[in-house]
Amino acid sequence: MTTDTPMQLGMIGLGRMGANLVRRLMRDGHRCVVYDLDREALQELEKEGATAATSLHDFVDKLEKPRNVWLMLPAGVVQPTLDQLAALLDPDDTVVDGGNSYYRDDIARAKQLAPRGIHYVDCGTSGGVWGLERGYCLMIGGEDDAVARLNPVFRTIAPGAGSVEPTPGRTRADGTAPEGYLHCGPSGAGHFVKMVHNGVEYGMMAAVAEGLSIIKHADAGLHRRAVDAETAPLREPEAYQYEIDVAEVAEVWRRGSVVSSWLVDLVADALARSPELDTFTGRVSDSGEGRWTVLAAVDESVPAPVIISALTQRYESRGLGEFTDKLLSAMRGEFGGHAEKAG
Amino acid sequence: MTTDTPMQLGMIGLGRMGANLVRRLMRDGHRCVVYDLDREALQELEKEGATAATSLHDFVDKLEKPRNVWLMLPAGVVQPTLDQLAALLDPDDTVVDGGNSYYRDDIARAKQLAPRGIHYVDCGTSGGVWGLERGYCLMIGGEDDAVARLNPVFRTIAPGAGSVEPTPGRTRADGTAPEGYLHCGPSGAGHFVKMVHNGVEYGMMAAVAEGLSIIKHADAGLHRRAVDAETAPLREPEAYQYEIDVAEVAEVWRRGSVVSSWLVDLVADALARSPELDTFTGRVSDSGEGRWTVLAAVDESVPAPVIISALTQRYESRGLGEFTDKLLSAMRGEFGGHAEKAG
Amino acid sequence: MTTDTPMQLGMIGLGRMGANLVRRLMRDGHRCVVYDLDREALQELEKEGATAATSLHDFVDKLEKPRNVWLMLPAGVVQPTLDQLAALLDPDDTVVDGGNSYYRDDIARAKQLAPRGIHYVDCGTSGGVWGLERGYCLMIGGEDDAVARLNPVFRTIAPGAGSVEPTPGRTRADGTAPEGYLHCGPSGAGHFVKMVHNGVEYGMMAAVAEGLSIIKHADAGLHRRAVDAETAPLREPEAYQYEIDVAEVAEVWRRGSVVSSWLVDLVADALARSPELDTFTGRVSDSGEGRWTVLAAVDESVPAPVIISALTQRYESRGLGEFTDKLLSAMRGEFGGHAEKAG
Amino acid sequence: MTTDTPMQLGMIGLGRMGANLVRRLMRDGHRCVVYDLDREALQELEKEGATAATSLHDFVDKLEKPRNVWLMLPAGVVQPTLDQLAALLDPDDTVVDGGNSYYRDDIARAKQLAPRGIHYVDCGTSGGVWGLERGYCLMIGGEDDAVARLNPVFRTIAPGAGSVEPTPGRTRADGTAPEGYLHCGPSGAGHFVKMVHNGVEYGMMAAVAEGLSIIKHADAGLHRRAVDAETAPLREPEAYQYEIDVAEVAEVWRRGSVVSSWLVDLVADALARSPELDTFTGRVSDSGEGRWTVLAAVDESVPAPVIISALTQRYESRGLGEFTDKLLSAMRGEFGGHAEKAG
Repeated sequence: MTTDTPMQLGMIGLGRMGANLVRRLMRDGHRCVVYDLDREALQELEKEGATAATSLHDFVDKLEKPRNVWLMLPAGVVQPTLDQLAALLDPDDTVVDGGNSYYRDDIARAKQLAPRGIHYVDCGTSGGVWGLERGYCLMIGGEDDAVARLNPVFRTIAPGAGSVEPTPGRTRADGTAPEGYLHCGPSGAGHFVKMVHNGVEYGMMAAVAEGLSIIKHADAGLHRRAVDAETAPLREPEAYQYEIDVAEVAEVWRRGSVVSSWLVDLVADALARSPELDTFTGRVSDSGEGRWTVLAAVDESVPAPVIISALTQRYESRGLGEFTDKLLSAMRGEFGGHAEKAG
Repeated sequence: MTTDTPMQLGMIGLGRMGANLVRRLMRDGHRCVVYDLDREALQELEKEGATAATSLHDFVDKLEKPRNVWLMLPAGVVQPTLDQLAALLDPDDTVVDGGNSYYRDDIARAKQLAPRGIHYVDCGTSGGVWGLERGYCLMIGGEDDAVARLNPVFRTIAPGAGSVEPTPGRTRADGTAPEGYLHCGPSGAGHFVKMVHNGVEYGMMAAVAEGLSIIKHADAGLHRRAVDAETAPLREPEAYQYEIDVAEVAEVWRRGSVVSSWLVDLVADALARSPELDTFTGRVSDSGEGRWTVLAAVDESVPAPVIISALTQRYESRGLGEFTDKLLSAMRGEFGGHAEKAG
Repeated sequence: MTTDTPMQLGMIGLGRMGANLVRRLMRDGHRCVVYDLDREALQELEKEGATAATSLHDFVDKLEKPRNVWLMLPAGVVQPTLDQLAALLDPDDTVVDGGNSYYRDDIARAKQLAPRGIHYVDCGTSGGVWGLERGYCLMIGGEDDAVARLNPVFRTIAPGAGSVEPTPGRTRADGTAPEGYLHCGPSGAGHFVKMVHNGVEYGMMAAVAEGLSIIKHADAGLHRRAVDAETAPLREPEAYQYEIDVAEVAEVWRRGSVVSSWLVDLVADALARSPELDTFTGRVSDSGEGRWTVLAAVDESVPAPVIISALTQRYESRGLGEFTDKLLSAMRGEFGGHAEKAG
Repeated sequence: MTTDTPMQLGMIGLGRMGANLVRRLMRDGHRCVVYDLDREALQELEKEGATAATSLHDFVDKLEKPRNVWLMLPAGVVQPTLDQLAALLDPDDTVVDGGNSYYRDDIARAKQLAPRGIHYVDCGTSGGVWGLERGYCLMIGGEDDAVARLNPVFRTIAPGAGSVEPTPGRTRADGTAPEGYLHCGPSGAGHFVKMVHNGVEYGMMAAVAEGLSIIKHADAGLHRRAVDAETAPLREPEAYQYEIDVAEVAEVWRRGSVVSSWLVDLVADALARSPELDTFTGRVSDSGEGRWTVLAAVDESVPAPVIISALTQRYESRGLGEFTDKLLSAMRGEFGGHAEKAG
């Protein structure tokens, strides 16, 4: 992390992500003004060197013009916050939405702010709770000038070129992608790429989870399955006699394998802590980007069976197929007199 | 139903399917010898005119040579019954397996019986509890002579040519398919076609069930969804304000629609009886054919995403994705600090 | 078909569907005023007894007030036609959109016309080229009064109660669903149900097509597959030695089977005419409803893996996964030095 | 790489993988006897320090007892080679199959060799063309003693503990997984885990490829789509106006993102070399493990929609859905009079 020009940045939203962004920025010499309704979060960062604002007004006052404001908020509260904030801003100020907004909202927001001369930059931010140390991957959308002006900030937040080995086939010398941030295109392009990133994440997670689950159930032949007209018996139980240590499989896959990845690192960690994952119920949330990725694929006529299946799987995990399943059982009852089985 | 030559047939297995086959055969003038370990089922059919056997020995004795034996048994007990039975049979006797055996077992069984001159015919039988009145669709495998000899029996069991309107484009005058039974090929071919029939059935059922479920949830905009970082809000609730009578939709689809089908007839009936299907839990069994269809598609390199998804959906309905889902939640917890949500 | 009250109806759009609707209406005593830019189609129906209009103005003039206008147009031209038409209509006139409009457009159109007192009814119409004889399944949305007034027309167009056997479990005596038409709810509800109907249609078609394809490829073991590091050999070729007559399988499934359906009737017809379907390339179009069904499922959080897979399959059939596939090959090349294989 | 005890190992099969294994072993002090029908490959390794054998007999003669033989061969030639080799081996010799055999074959082979006292070890080897430098991830099956004896060899081949950061939650000090090799269980367990590894690989690759494809087609609104009854128009072209540099997206995802992985590294490299991937046709091979993973999932009743979709997608990429698609077009022609569209 080397910052050409330390900048001042205002951060609204001091949840895990926002707070860590501020910390990473301050470590690299940037000055941060912070604001959040949660006083404790505010004081915490103040102690660490940030300037705390007591209100939106105070926040805007404490920023040097042209102001740079970063919003790190749940998708649902971005719009009302932006509406309040924009009323206080001046021409040539810039707002960055670093959260998980739908890219179509970015297009609308940029249009909404343009007449007042306020720049709007959408920035998809990946890295989760580990980003403070590891750096965040940034996918950015907006006008060229507005984005370029924030480069020092982006460069600090991103992991930096040294974090992984260079791509051997890469010959172009320009571009910021090797540093971990990318201006993807006009308004919305950043969140579009981040949205799809999360769709890819859904698919990769599902591939890993399904695979480990198949390995866990390699002992299927050791358990007697009920034999009746309603249940398919396992034809070759002798082929499913393995009791494999799934946690160790995840650990070994971290090194040298084709599937080595951060997600495998994480699942190895989770399994090392709790091999049976007893503390989880298996109700898997989805928080928007996966759905939007599917909608985009459908609109664009791009077949995306894997990403779509990963989304569907999460719906199933939450029991949302219940009426469908009842209909299936009802049909089976109608044509075959099949009764449902318990368990 | 017109029978050229009344025949004698022995039936082993007097469950719903076996008993109704006997009834349909007797109605059409065939003579039936019946056997089952369940004495009540035996006596019931005896009252209706069948000859009841008290043991396998007695059963074999009561059949005229060359004997015709039909097995209508759960897949799991076919082999042991066949082993006992075959020991009592003579050359030129014929055994029909009318159940849901795996076609690969048919190939093995035909080979097992051939040296003793016993014919083996595999016959996939579709029609469920309604077959007594509606007739059964028969998909048959085996040697030409053995199958041909049983034509009078097949013709009686099948629905007959008049049951639906002729196919306009059909010009060939020969073939038994218009009567509802088909000799599909050598040993195993009958159960192969029946297996795939059930795979198709899984897919069609799923399509109907998913569609009706989407219609049922057209009221999604009327319910408030929790808004937090873990849950995608419904962007346009105003587009999901319909409370549609799903039972009536199924009823109207029965007539003139492209999806009109026996399965839609059945689901309309189920919904007419119980619009919320409260008596079902939604644990959908699968009894072998769907799985085997998927295995065949994979072996043949035929993409079958719909049939495969229908099978997967049934697994999901029974909670079999639990460890996969826990792994997904665990990964989300690792990278995002996302906690699982209740409900 | 019995019509309580013959009515006058104006039809705009005399393609296959529109023309046959007019014919079916006139057969049952209704009077029809017809309009289309295609003069030939216009004259044809005039010869059959309809009143032909020479312009939209003329069309509107020839209708008795309050007017009943049915639009049977490609989705893309409904809005401009409606805009022109509405300018000529009077309060209490009714417009029915019988095409395949997106239900969200219906909501907007009804709102657009309401201030002028013009009623808007959306009517999903299923039945295709066979509807003239078979009747059309109608799924209707709109205000109660506007829909009720058109009942005589709907009743004529629909197949009628006698077209299939009554649903045994149905106890309610009211409702029009048994006649083949249904008022599903307020504006858009008709096209919503029709949209999902088509989604179900996609899924059912795919199930049938996949199944027959698996049966066709039951001869996989008869063909030698290349054996090299890039190709999985067929492990048990002896299990795939069947050459099954797919056309006859479709024919036999028409009778007594669980999958018996209009779609199986149709595929049996197509295969009877051309067993190899040589005239088709296999590029399968999708015309909107399938996509919209998927979008609705995603929005409603309803898992619909089968319908979604059927849509994806159509995209794949048109080669739309090409860049995805190139990426896969490129990755294989990178990690394994795998070269793509021709053919 | 630190080798406690340099060992002697015989390698049969000097393709890319086999040759690089030998090189990696020799670098670490192990002595290698090599054999291949390809003389050039043989001489090449001889020059690099290996002992070349001129025949299987010679190969066996040159190995010290008890012998350690590693087979690195295409799946199809393992069995005949093993049959020839085993005839020349003595009790207490060990054969490692390091290729991609089906794990069920391992079970059979171990049983076949056991009566002669020959040990059989199955070893799934991941790492591809990069393994020479990066090390190979090894998934091993077989008896404890036979596997333990080869530990020095496995340790050299594997990447070693330092290749990635330790898993924070891992508390157990024992186990070889952190070094990149794992004894997974009895015979077949190694190839079972490797098989599933490849299934996971299919799913992860597909997720990445689909996502990048969705990003590439974010320009869909810039292209006019044909508007007719057969084609769904893009409703909101203004939302798909992005021309995003896909190669740069892959590059930026390498750093700090949740999807960072070796596969993203590789796809970034491929796109850096050729942004349009013009040299690829998009016919994606599958070489067995993906299929077998699906078969295992079906047998075990584990829902694996993502891995299964990834396999299906590869079948589609090779045009294997053609008959299915023709059937779909034929049905559309039947009910709707829809003609197929070119292009």
